Amino acid sequence: MCVLGESRLEGYHGLAYRKLVEAGVNVGDTVEVSFGDESFVGRLMPRVESDDDSVVTIKLPNGYNIGLSVVDASVRLVSPAGGLHQQPPVEEAVGFGAGEYVALISTGGTIASRVEYETGAVRPALRASDLMSLVPELEGISRLKTQVLMSILSEDMKPAYWERIARAVYSELEAGAAGVVVAHGTDTMGYTAAALSFALRGVDRPIVLVGSQRSSDRPSSDAYTNLLCAVKFAKESFRPGVYVCMHASTSDPTCAVIPGVKVRKMHTSRRDAFKAVNTRPVAFVDRDKLVFLDESSKGYVVGGGVVFKPGFSDKAALIEYYPGFSLDILNWLAEKGYLGVVLAGTGLGHVSSELVDGIARLRRSGFLIYMTSQCLYGRVNMNVYTTGRRLLAAGVVPLGDMLPETAYVKLSWALANYPLEEVDGVMRSNLVGELSARSVYSGEWT
Amino acid sequence: MCVLGESRLEGYHGLAYRKLVEAGVNVGDTVEVSFGDESFVGRLMPRVESDDDSVVTIKLPNGYNIGLSVVDASVRLVSPAGGLHQQPPVEEAVGFGAGEYVALISTGGTIASRVEYETGAVRPALRASDLMSLVPELEGISRLKTQVLMSILSEDMKPAYWERIARAVYSELEAGAAGVVVAHGTDTMGYTAAALSFALRGVDRPIVLVGSQRSSDRPSSDAYTNLLCAVKFAKESFRPGVYVCMHASTSDPTCAVIPGVKVRKMHTSRRDAFKAVNTRPVAFVDRDKLVFLDESSKGYVVGGGVVFKPGFSDKAALIEYYPGFSLDILNWLAEKGYLGVVLAGTGLGHVSSELVDGIARLRRSGFLIYMTSQCLYGRVNMNVYTTGRRLLAAGVVPLGDMLPETAYVKLSWALANYPLEEVDGVMRSNLVGELSARSVYSGEWT
Repeated sequence: MCVLGESRLEGYHGLAYRKLVEAGVNVGDTVEVSFGDESFVGRLMPRVESDDDSVVTIKLPNGYNIGLSVVDASVRLVSPAGGLHQQPPVEEAVGFGAGEYVALISTGGTIASRVEYETGAVRPALRASDLMSLVPELEGISRLKTQVLMSILSEDMKPAYWERIARAVYSELEAGAAGVVVAHGTDTMGYTAAALSFALRGVDRPIVLVGSQRSSDRPSSDAYTNLLCAVKFAKESFRPGVYVCMHASTSDPTCAVIPGVKVRKMHTSRRDAFKAVNTRPVAFVDRDKLVFLDESSKGYVVGGGVVFKPGFSDKAALIEYYPGFSLDILNWLAEKGYLGVVLAGTGLGHVSSELVDGIARLRRSGFLIYMTSQCLYGRVNMNVYTTGRRLLAAGVVPLGDMLPETAYVKLSWALANYPLEEVDGVMRSNLVGELSARSVYSGEWT
Repeated sequence: MCVLGESRLEGYHGLAYRKLVEAGVNVGDTVEVSFGDESFVGRLMPRVESDDDSVVTIKLPNGYNIGLSVVDASVRLVSPAGGLHQQPPVEEAVGFGAGEYVALISTGGTIASRVEYETGAVRPALRASDLMSLVPELEGISRLKTQVLMSILSEDMKPAYWERIARAVYSELEAGAAGVVVAHGTDTMGYTAAALSFALRGVDRPIVLVGSQRSSDRPSSDAYTNLLCAVKFAKESFRPGVYVCMHASTSDPTCAVIPGVKVRKMHTSRRDAFKAVNTRPVAFVDRDKLVFLDESSKGYVVGGGVVFKPGFSDKAALIEYYPGFSLDILNWLAEKGYLGVVLAGTGLGHVSSELVDGIARLRRSGFLIYMTSQCLYGRVNMNVYTTGRRLLAAGVVPLGDMLPETAYVKLSWALANYPLEEVDGVMRSNLVGELSARSVYSGEWT
């Protein structure tokens, strides 16, 4: 938790600081930076740590941040921020009533990162409080309680961290947050969204993961819009469950809210990289409105509230099948002590028929084997072709339209929280929307 | 090679045969099958082997096949096929001039399969000649020389078979075919398309892989349209290269022709499952027209014609990274004698930073490691984040916008055809369009 809004020229020093002081400008004020004929008007943003002390960052009216060197520029105050910084948007949660605030938990990632200007590379650095100072509009949506739980690159996420995040979210819900926003790197955000979905099954409030594809102090960062939309959904939707909230398209500041077990990062760099797979987003959000696409589901409420099971095992694996794939890999996993594997097979859920006998042996030895499809869209159906039926007979458990990555996370979770003999039953059951009786194909991929 | 068109009631026996003989109907004729008030008019199709001798298969005007039990139905000849079966559409290639015909090589898969009516399951069975008798319209497009090279389930495809197919295609080109169509199961068609692309680099004619998502004697099979379009493209496009030709959408009989190194099966069951990833189809085809989207590329012609390198190694692997992934898997691959691995990392091309030192050790020992993205769309860029730069320093080779599956096939091919010290250079080079300088994003996935 932290208090924001005290510094008036956060992060600025050197030339930029002097020019801003001369102009009588504070962070949050609207300023004009002029280069001869050309000028830019926008809100002065706090400056992220940098060796280059000649640059000021302003947020343009379209929500983009832009960094401008003031070496040859003049700076002019257009209008002060007024009361904006008199009432800091973040306060100690002491005194917040239950449901009056959103808890924002930062785990790291690009949304919480700064550019190293000397290299152009990105490192995690920002605290949750910094995020919020980038989006003063949050004040109009909700009081916020912030916490930096960890500060890691999202590719470094692992099952043990899923548990830490689940515990932190659970604590915030217990303490009375209206909803929880988890700032997370995008690389593995889908996996963590699935992990929280299982760990906090039956949750009665929204848990929203949010990230950005471009760091928050770069021009064209999506951090601003995504964070605004995520907090809005957490505070105003009253929709139970775990979701990812990210840009819905490249062209407008609307975010899609997608169920955490049916979301996948489908592009390396586009702002609208996150797609609902075999389902639709539950809602679209922008700064002004919140539109539900799917009113039917009210979440997976379990009698008696949240079933909190935060553990994850490291004895699960995810393996994609390909022509030339050798059974040796699965045998090695079993020998190494792995308890089960999720296969991403071909098409409707196949691997080479040459592997069937070996797979049957592995199953008889107690090694668990689940089938998903590397197609990602659609669902496995192992009754159509001979090989599928032989794999079923060998004990492979088909997982319908479950994403391979979601199935892997679920297996890791099931192994940590249920006796081994119950894991097949858990995997076959639809607990939080991960396994649809019939898939709703979004038009997105067509 | 085979001669078609001699049998007039191919595959029919029992009740259906008797009713057809009574009605004076031959395969290819237009018939009416009536059930009291309801009747169906269409062209009588040859009957695929089945225990149920009461069913006739007719092709409706919309191109769909439908199976009708004639136990309580009457059958009437509407109009005879005329000369259709007097001039068999398939002939011995003896006497065909170079460029006058398309070679059709069948490898198995659903397009060459029949339904087991007793179980509803599908087994490979049809010969190439049977395929063509299902599509008499092929006669108007091209003379055809057919061959059943193998009859396998596509999930059983493996690198050694890629070589057999490559050799068969090469022979047909040497013999003078205008183009080659390869009938193939859909599960692994993308992998084989990539394999032929590399094995037959510099080919001067079209090689078109075609399959079907529903078997050719089922109602709503896509075999008819796909085969028609594939043969048309092979004969009429004069476009060098290896392509996949499959339904472009669910709603009309148009096929998309997609480069073999940029195609992926992205749905388990839809007819339009094959998508161009990080590129666009080169053309759309239907029975009446052939429209090029991309006139710019004339294929990857290498001076002196095709560079025929049909070998593939089984010492390559494809591994998807996930949170909790252990370096042990890579160490085991190296110990087991694998020469290299294609990683499908997260986002722009990452794995956990905890793995970097171990990966550097593996590289120093001579084990080859390549990076693609599990996002599939977009391209790896390992200069943006610290972990990416550390992985580059460790010797990981980034593969741009190459699909993980294409990269795996290319590695298998490179290991079999180049000295180990040249493989990195081969993998980094764009040989047949697998690695674009800049990706063209189709609108398909948005």
